[in-house]
Amino acid sequence: MYATRRARLRDRYAAAGTGAGAPDTAAALVSSPANIRYLAGCAPRGAALLLHGGGDTLLCPSAPTGEPSEGRPAEDLRISLLPAHTGDPVVAAADLAVKAGAEALAVEEHHLTVARHRALRSVAPGLRLADLGCAVEAQRLVKDQDEIACLRIAAEITDQALGELLESILVGRTERHLALELERRLVDHGADGPAFATSVATGPNSGRPGHLPTDRRVEEGDFLTVSLGADYRGYRCEIGRTFVIGTTPADWQIELYDLVFAAQRAGREALAPGVECREVDRAARQVLASGGHEEGLGPWTGHGVGLEIAEDPQLSPAAMGKLDACVPVTVDPGVHLPGRGGVRIDDTLVVRPEADGGPELLTITTKELLAL
Amino acid sequence: MYATRRARLRDRYAAAGTGAGAPDTAAALVSSPANIRYLAGCAPRGAALLLHGGGDTLLCPSAPTGEPSEGRPAEDLRISLLPAHTGDPVVAAADLAVKAGAEALAVEEHHLTVARHRALRSVAPGLRLADLGCAVEAQRLVKDQDEIACLRIAAEITDQALGELLESILVGRTERHLALELERRLVDHGADGPAFATSVATGPNSGRPGHLPTDRRVEEGDFLTVSLGADYRGYRCEIGRTFVIGTTPADWQIELYDLVFAAQRAGREALAPGVECREVDRAARQVLASGGHEEGLGPWTGHGVGLEIAEDPQLSPAAMGKLDACVPVTVDPGVHLPGRGGVRIDDTLVVRPEADGGPELLTITTKELLAL
Repeated sequence: MYATRRARLRDRYAAAGTGAGAPDTAAALVSSPANIRYLAGCAPRGAALLLHGGGDTLLCPSAPTGEPSEGRPAEDLRISLLPAHTGDPVVAAADLAVKAGAEALAVEEHHLTVARHRALRSVAPGLRLADLGCAVEAQRLVKDQDEIACLRIAAEITDQALGELLESILVGRTERHLALELERRLVDHGADGPAFATSVATGPNSGRPGHLPTDRRVEEGDFLTVSLGADYRGYRCEIGRTFVIGTTPADWQIELYDLVFAAQRAGREALAPGVECREVDRAARQVLASGGHEEGLGPWTGHGVGLEIAEDPQLSPAAMGKLDACVPVTVDPGVHLPGRGGVRIDDTLVVRPEADGGPELLTITTKELLAL
Repeated sequence: MYATRRARLRDRYAAAGTGAGAPDTAAALVSSPANIRYLAGCAPRGAALLLHGGGDTLLCPSAPTGEPSEGRPAEDLRISLLPAHTGDPVVAAADLAVKAGAEALAVEEHHLTVARHRALRSVAPGLRLADLGCAVEAQRLVKDQDEIACLRIAAEITDQALGELLESILVGRTERHLALELERRLVDHGADGPAFATSVATGPNSGRPGHLPTDRRVEEGDFLTVSLGADYRGYRCEIGRTFVIGTTPADWQIELYDLVFAAQRAGREALAPGVECREVDRAARQVLASGGHEEGLGPWTGHGVGLEIAEDPQLSPAAMGKLDACVPVTVDPGVHLPGRGGVRIDDTLVVRPEADGGPELLTITTKELLAL
């Protein structure tokens, strides 16, 4: 599987002319951890992956552990353990490429810093450096069955963790504690860890995207928004829900909730292969705009998920490109009213053709407005 | 305070000639989050800081929250909130620099990617780009009283969290759960979060640097190594301890523990202003070598801490430079015997002259070999 992925990448960058020439004179250097994991099965800290006709090599400062959470290195890879004082694996990889007879090397210019790029150039001045661009990211867009299976498990774990929290007493507990408890429950249920920093936002903080949990305690009458996800074998999903604390939501809370709910449903229903990404964003955004909330909306209303929690495609007004089948995305519109709070509703779904039943909802926790 | 730091930086890069010229034609662009926090008081996600004679500006995609964990923006800063669809704040900052009349812009080439650097160049083709290098990191080396106060609190929280764990039953619990519990206790005691991913390693995993917790359960006879630290107001400390599970340690365990303990003490005792960093590393390393463990040692035996968990100085054989007073560092030697386990002992200390009582130990949990 990993060998197939690497072969596809080789075709791609050879065809794009970035590393043109006889196969054994062109090489590519992958430095982004998620891209390395996708192509090599694991990504030990600080590793670099050299793709070269003569054999692909994973250069790393310490041996891969083979733990499920880290991933197991693909069996056909050469592993080059760098001695402790060697310095940057990226530079060592360039050196190796030259020794293996490569004349051109495509690097990830969107990941390498200017300083590392310069160090690489100085160790291999004769090497023609090109830009690999986002070739690996593009290849990662459409997921295979194994990848989607990991995402399904990640979503199941996430639903379980959230479900358990809803059964506990919330009033009086701080955002920070609730976030930690959710993360513990994710791990209890088999996650390798949280997919991103769990966000719990209460009262005036609720609905704020990416809110960092504070010491504010849950109070009667609050909106409570939570955003969490499991990392399972490197694959990350995301769920967001908003609840109200106490017996009866206020009118403004019900109104706002219904609006965001309608926006999120519109976004979900717009998901189909061949649909423009920005159309999905527009479907959700125009519902919010119709409720008078076009100001202050975030730059996107959804994004791809996979080995990174936010990857392509982006569902935003300026997004280019269309959706494909087997692309997992979030649909996560929200509204935050400064000083009052807000609502965010977020699911992870896999784009599927109508013939297959339409989008597959991975995160199945109810989206009713629960009063807890 | 922040204004003073920025003024010192301006002197530094002007003197180094990177942004030479009349003060209002030279500007600097800081993009590394820790450096932004140091100079601006906070670092909202994706922010960039433009330093310019005509006024310093923090460009950010969303408003700073002012939460203690995020930090509060310095009062004399201009804050420029970028509209949602603006794109990279670094590019917007370059644009702003040109409009403000800057002719030269020093950027952090060790942080900016090749692709962002190119985007910046293309939006401001007339701007002379220079390298700010690690000027801010260099300035961050010696800590002021407020910074050391934050580190003291971080260490106190860390000791408390670890102390509570030692009072609980450990046998039968997994590495993953113990790590999560430690992180919860850090937050209980007032941390803004863990300073880094808490490591708990049992049995054959023990002593492995940066070990990611697994589902292995603590067993009788195990070595147990833990490594954790609190983040308090952005400042991060680190502690590492090794325990033995059960009533009586085996002979090899006592021997190995005593050796690492002696190495760590030698490292601690070598800390003083004016001492070469590599001398501290050598002091610890040669004790381990005398016990036959020179192979397989990590690339360093200590490092600076502050707004980042691993920052300058590095205590390693190849390190250049000398220690100064008021530089906080870790001393963290360890030995891992593949298949058997190992020992790691790690403290955070502040370098102080002998006249002031020598190095100040921040993490005070006992380093006796406890049998739990």
